[in-house]
Amino acid sequence: MKRGKFITLEGIDGAGKSTQLAWMAELLQRAGKRIVVTREPGGTALGEQLRALLLDRSMAMHVETEALLMFAARREHLDKVILPALAQDQWVLSDRFTDASFAYQSGGRGLDSAKLIILEQWVQGALQPDLTLYFDVPVNVGQQRVNQGRVMDRFEQEQADFFLRVRAAYLDRAQRFPDRIKIIDSNRSLPEVKVAVEQILQPLLHHE
Amino acid sequence: MKRGKFITLEGIDGAGKSTQLAWMAELLQRAGKRIVVTREPGGTALGEQLRALLLDRSMAMHVETEALLMFAARREHLDKVILPALAQDQWVLSDRFTDASFAYQSGGRGLDSAKLIILEQWVQGALQPDLTLYFDVPVNVGQQRVNQGRVMDRFEQEQADFFLRVRAAYLDRAQRFPDRIKIIDSNRSLPEVKVAVEQILQPLLHHE
Repeated sequence: MKRGKFITLEGIDGAGKSTQLAWMAELLQRAGKRIVVTREPGGTALGEQLRALLLDRSMAMHVETEALLMFAARREHLDKVILPALAQDQWVLSDRFTDASFAYQSGGRGLDSAKLIILEQWVQGALQPDLTLYFDVPVNVGQQRVNQGRVMDRFEQEQADFFLRVRAAYLDRAQRFPDRIKIIDSNRSLPEVKVAVEQILQPLLHHE
Repeated sequence: MKRGKFITLEGIDGAGKSTQLAWMAELLQRAGKRIVVTREPGGTALGEQLRALLLDRSMAMHVETEALLMFAARREHLDKVILPALAQDQWVLSDRFTDASFAYQSGGRGLDSAKLIILEQWVQGALQPDLTLYFDVPVNVGQQRVNQGRVMDRFEQEQADFFLRVRAAYLDRAQRFPDRIKIIDSNRSLPEVKVAVEQILQPLLHHE
């Protein structure tokens, strides 16, 4: 049985993930892949309800509660969306996955990463994405892109030093897992970023 | 610093926990204790929202998701309610706690208890209730008490064999932790159950 590939997109808000995700979906479809586009936290009926709680500015919670909720949503996401799609040879593109827990709950909020490794193992066993694209931008650039007048959620409203820690944690993950996580300099024009993404995806498309 | 006692009440629906809890609260207050009455899942603003998701009959979810949500609500409950109260020498009476996860998610739904032990350790560290009262009734008695015409939630709607497994898991826990968990035969008249509860509580009250 052929199995689809699991590709995750990571980065701070304003890094350009969503724009790239839409374009990547098109590229993969043109290459004849059946794709599922999803996101975390969310991706299921329950997960989207948990997302609403997690992003609600009025909902203060302990960082460990936040981590448990992220992994609860993830468990459901794996069961209902990701694993069934991969088993049917569909490619899954997820806007964020477990690297985001390490970046936000550990890097940003200071939760011991050893506690996240326990939850990762509990929920995923040995499963990891086949490829993770980490879209890297300086924090001030990301924040300028986000601050376009809309109301910010519980994470977006954090201060610059929070996102500096999140970015540092992402870069640390990328260094630790260089085979899986590819850093894409997203502080460039859209066409330039697309070229970089395509160069990474092409070998995967033809390596079938 | 004097520390309050943490007492949990366990049992299947219809075992009489709520009735006994109200009466226990009164007994403790008469003995001069300051008390906090709470419940799981729930006990906090976030926890009550998670409770609504967990009990919603239309919300199917993987048993591991269910367990993670229970422990997420529990983490918040400990942080916002239980630990602050105990630290201020208040006594906490909780309608269900972690034994219920072992009884329902493991006993009832078949989740490997080793996976629950990991979450218990993750969320609680070494913390355990000072006393757990397990109200034991035959499953058909509990179900008769519950089936008074109201709409049943996602757990209550389970079949008798589910509750047989839940009850067996509770009894197994009580055997394993005889110093902490006291079995109370709840298949008796209310006054008789009250006498049994009071006999267990009295030494705790005077052992200060």
